[in-house]
Amino acid sequence: MDCPIARSLERVGEWWSILILRDAFAGLARFDEFETSLGIAPNMLARRLQALVKAGLLQKRRYSARPPRHEYVLTERGRDFRPVLLALLAYGNRHFAPEGASVIVVDAATGEPVEPAVVDKRTGRVLAEPEFAVVAGPAASEATKARLAARGARVAVR
Amino acid sequence: MDCPIARSLERVGEWWSILILRDAFAGLARFDEFETSLGIAPNMLARRLQALVKAGLLQKRRYSARPPRHEYVLTERGRDFRPVLLALLAYGNRHFAPEGASVIVVDAATGEPVEPAVVDKRTGRVLAEPEFAVVAGPAASEATKARLAARGARVAVR
Repeated sequence: MDCPIARSLERVGEWWSILILRDAFAGLARFDEFETSLGIAPNMLARRLQALVKAGLLQKRRYSARPPRHEYVLTERGRDFRPVLLALLAYGNRHFAPEGASVIVVDAATGEPVEPAVVDKRTGRVLAEPEFAVVAGPAASEATKARLAARGARVAVR
Repeated sequence: MDCPIARSLERVGEWWSILILRDAFAGLARFDEFETSLGIAPNMLARRLQALVKAGLLQKRRYSARPPRHEYVLTERGRDFRPVLLALLAYGNRHFAPEGASVIVVDAATGEPVEPAVVDKRTGRVLAEPEFAVVAGPAASEATKARLAARGARVAVR
């Protein structure tokens, strides 16, 4: 599959993986810290950590030689996942927090809450429909071209 | 769990669900269209569609009375998931597309490619670390406050 969404999900798409990344951003690094925070079974946690290391989002770092102990820290690729988490956070606050926001993003200097939005980096315009479209890129396979072309066809039919 | 990321994932967190939403944005609506596009087992597809309807992201709409046939269309809540998909798309293009982008976001009027970024909607500033922080909001539970406070503690210790 050449879809970049599918490829991202292949690497980090499991529920637990995304919560592990969330906790890593919150400063957790050790196996037992993730285990306590997530209430996840140890074998499942070990598998998800290993997958995130393999995908290059976490790095295993030894913090004790005897006994050998490792912690898991975000790589540059892992840190770059933050915009996805912030988009999920904003979505959850808008749609699934009837009692008010439990977690918010703030300007660290002023404490002022901010409202995350996905925009075109160069112009600052919010990527709303129908002004911005998702289309086949230069490396698209025939299947991806067909999938994306279907949209135009259906829109034309309606 | 009062974390908005966890709540979003509870509703749409499965791999398949996110790809169903992706295809819904591309104009697919009928069971067999999703089935063909995703290569997913019918019982799994039925379960995921039902969950997305229950979570309020898709709406079931009858398009034929005899035989009774339904299609699945995005609700307003479903359409609002687009920023998350665009953030995943940009992430996949940056990290998992060594051969070049197969899917891109463009200005629909000019065809010019855009670069999705997550910013503060009011100021346009990119939500980079450490200028922007994730903190407990007004409705945070004690557990969430403790989880988010752990970060400060660890940073102070290091």
